[in-house]
Amino acid sequence: MVIMLKNRSIISISDLDGEDINEVFSRADKMLENIESGKKINVMSSKILATLFYEPSTRTRLSFESAMERLGGSVISMADSKTSSTSKGETLADTIRIVESYSDLIVIRHPLEGAAFLASRFSSKPIINAGDGSGEHPTQTLIDLYTIRKEFGSIDGKTITIIGDLKYGRTVHSLLSALSRYNVTVNLVSPENLAIPKHVYNDVKGRLNMNISTDITKYLGETDILYVTRIQKERFTDKNEYARLIGSYKITVSDVNKLKKGAIIMHPLPRVDEISSEVDNTPAARYFKQAYYGVPVRMAIISMIAGE
Amino acid sequence: MVIMLKNRSIISISDLDGEDINEVFSRADKMLENIESGKKINVMSSKILATLFYEPSTRTRLSFESAMERLGGSVISMADSKTSSTSKGETLADTIRIVESYSDLIVIRHPLEGAAFLASRFSSKPIINAGDGSGEHPTQTLIDLYTIRKEFGSIDGKTITIIGDLKYGRTVHSLLSALSRYNVTVNLVSPENLAIPKHVYNDVKGRLNMNISTDITKYLGETDILYVTRIQKERFTDKNEYARLIGSYKITVSDVNKLKKGAIIMHPLPRVDEISSEVDNTPAARYFKQAYYGVPVRMAIISMIAGE
Amino acid sequence: MVIMLKNRSIISISDLDGEDINEVFSRADKMLENIESGKKINVMSSKILATLFYEPSTRTRLSFESAMERLGGSVISMADSKTSSTSKGETLADTIRIVESYSDLIVIRHPLEGAAFLASRFSSKPIINAGDGSGEHPTQTLIDLYTIRKEFGSIDGKTITIIGDLKYGRTVHSLLSALSRYNVTVNLVSPENLAIPKHVYNDVKGRLNMNISTDITKYLGETDILYVTRIQKERFTDKNEYARLIGSYKITVSDVNKLKKGAIIMHPLPRVDEISSEVDNTPAARYFKQAYYGVPVRMAIISMIAGE
Repeated sequence: MVIMLKNRSIISISDLDGEDINEVFSRADKMLENIESGKKINVMSSKILATLFYEPSTRTRLSFESAMERLGGSVISMADSKTSSTSKGETLADTIRIVESYSDLIVIRHPLEGAAFLASRFSSKPIINAGDGSGEHPTQTLIDLYTIRKEFGSIDGKTITIIGDLKYGRTVHSLLSALSRYNVTVNLVSPENLAIPKHVYNDVKGRLNMNISTDITKYLGETDILYVTRIQKERFTDKNEYARLIGSYKITVSDVNKLKKGAIIMHPLPRVDEISSEVDNTPAARYFKQAYYGVPVRMAIISMIAGE
Repeated sequence: MVIMLKNRSIISISDLDGEDINEVFSRADKMLENIESGKKINVMSSKILATLFYEPSTRTRLSFESAMERLGGSVISMADSKTSSTSKGETLADTIRIVESYSDLIVIRHPLEGAAFLASRFSSKPIINAGDGSGEHPTQTLIDLYTIRKEFGSIDGKTITIIGDLKYGRTVHSLLSALSRYNVTVNLVSPENLAIPKHVYNDVKGRLNMNISTDITKYLGETDILYVTRIQKERFTDKNEYARLIGSYKITVSDVNKLKKGAIIMHPLPRVDEISSEVDNTPAARYFKQAYYGVPVRMAIISMIAGE
Repeated sequence: MVIMLKNRSIISISDLDGEDINEVFSRADKMLENIESGKKINVMSSKILATLFYEPSTRTRLSFESAMERLGGSVISMADSKTSSTSKGETLADTIRIVESYSDLIVIRHPLEGAAFLASRFSSKPIINAGDGSGEHPTQTLIDLYTIRKEFGSIDGKTITIIGDLKYGRTVHSLLSALSRYNVTVNLVSPENLAIPKHVYNDVKGRLNMNISTDITKYLGETDILYVTRIQKERFTDKNEYARLIGSYKITVSDVNKLKKGAIIMHPLPRVDEISSEVDNTPAARYFKQAYYGVPVRMAIISMIAGE
């Protein structure tokens, strides 16, 4: 089989077509089997992954590093840009042109939208975007899709209710774009000031059956997947307004009980106050499982773009 | 042989019984042989160790990472909690539930007592406590015991004089608890405001022959092992008091000369002013050797709880 | 062949004689072949490299770590001294005596001149100086020499014009010392307040044909290698003076056009404003290639001093 992603950068979820995504899924299934049986597969044993994190994210960084190591590869890591040449005034373009000569594949997290794309223009080695400001985080979206498929067998026909910060959450924008390839219903629930941006809505509206509300209980009964995102305090100038909202947008066991039978709850994590810790013990909770799928999905992606 | 520690967390030195400790010793002997002959043993080659350090400790972190790599395993590392999701408000429980899915074994250092125990409650993978506030640091204690056994052949029958901060030093509390399993005499020497806490004393008094003093010279002539600990400036409100004490509690060559023949000096390190640098050149100095034993002892522990 | 560097520390470029340097070159050629053909050579597979960075330098650290991993070895890393025992007041000598027991080879970067030498006095394992304040950075010099030889076939007979901060730049001092072993002409061009220090000049003047100027255009027509270094703002008390100079010392395409036919431009990087980004696209630009040679040269050095 020809792997179309071979040596290609992954900046946006739209860099993958349906066939690519299916290949990610079937590889991730195999990776998961290997992890669970304790086998290490050595398809990256002569390769080096560089992780460049210009913004802290232990989870994402460790997930990629674990994936690379489970594939038999090695890792070099900049966990904190304050200890880097960036602090001497070096441009991102220069850093990338140097780090590409140390590694076979670069994972980058950056506070500015477009940074990963810029990096890919200066690198002869593939770049994986691990989050660029309010831009994209394509491997998170692949993990989200994989989780739905894994838990339900397929994505088509599902009703997904997305709750929280729909304005700034890059996770949500990438997810909507990806879901628009499937036959699904999406309910978008957020406070008014954190509603889905018009351009994001317009991008997908012809292809997605969407409903919009500010009421978190409205769609619970028809929801297969409740996708919860973090509401960040920094988004509010009025802290009382924040306090009021964060309370009314917190998912509790009582909300869980209103969900459709067999429904699951997802969250890209970290979670702060959006989901009550009691929900963790309900059969619907799937956010830690979702994080668990991060390693096999990233193993799949890494092996597809840089495997031996 | 059945390894009782297989898949078990090590939070306290009391998690190991006498047989476990003997198994650590005999494995550490073999690991030491391997290190010295330059052999790498691949008992962890498909495994990943995560080091989560919520408090800086280069020595302890690098010692565990070196141990894992000498066993053929891989490492993922959070060296600094300021670059982590903790800074976004994530709870320790959530971090652990995610990191356990990236790794096969987690080593945690945390400023709060009880943190490692809490971590072990949320992890299906074994946790090793690498220091939790004024709580425990069980692998340090194993290294201390191993050093005594290695240097003297056995622990029974020895006289150990422990000097310095006996109040806050977690190393001392774990060590006392471990020594109470052996037939030894322990002399406890500290400034009055840093004396051994009553509950720690009471815990071991029935099983240990103990003496208490504020005079560092009092027991030198009968001491086999002089165990020195750091006195931290932060513990004193009166800085003149600190300056006076730190001077009178500094071990010099003249003190070393008063020790029993064949005696050794140990220190969990880092050392600041408690031992004069001239002592480093005396035959009694064993604190760097003790640090050297850190890797084989940790190799033993890691292979026992997570080996293939 | 007997490797004279086996188990030796590299503190200064003068620790290597001509034969050593030739051996570095021929090994680096082989390493480069291995990198380009995607082969991993396992001459360090049971060894651990410790990188101790008391001063941030992502490039140098990642370059050494990549070199070690491409040789099949493992790495333990202190990327930031603020997360280390140094913050508890431990001396460098103590840190080294401990870290040497965790590793087979130590790479150290430190803000103070002489730190790497001091480290080598307390270590039974080889130390590589990766920059000690305004002291030396010998592997950078080896990369510089290797780049010239690789691009021109030999070093003898070339004219090298060095531009920028010749006073504080440790790179320049090491490079001059190394070049004095070859039959070359060196032009030294800098602002007056950043001229080459008298003692550095005197050290090499009998063995090197040198010219000095403040005019960056003066030697362009006869230059085979234009070696540009960074001028640091911190060196100027008068910020207007800095602004004026940084402008007149910036290499532009018009300067490049005045160079001798076939000339190349080198820079130890990071570059801030010393070379216009348009120069990157000229055939003379060789600074990213120079960084690319960092890994094979460091693989050569590591394998020579600590290879199996």
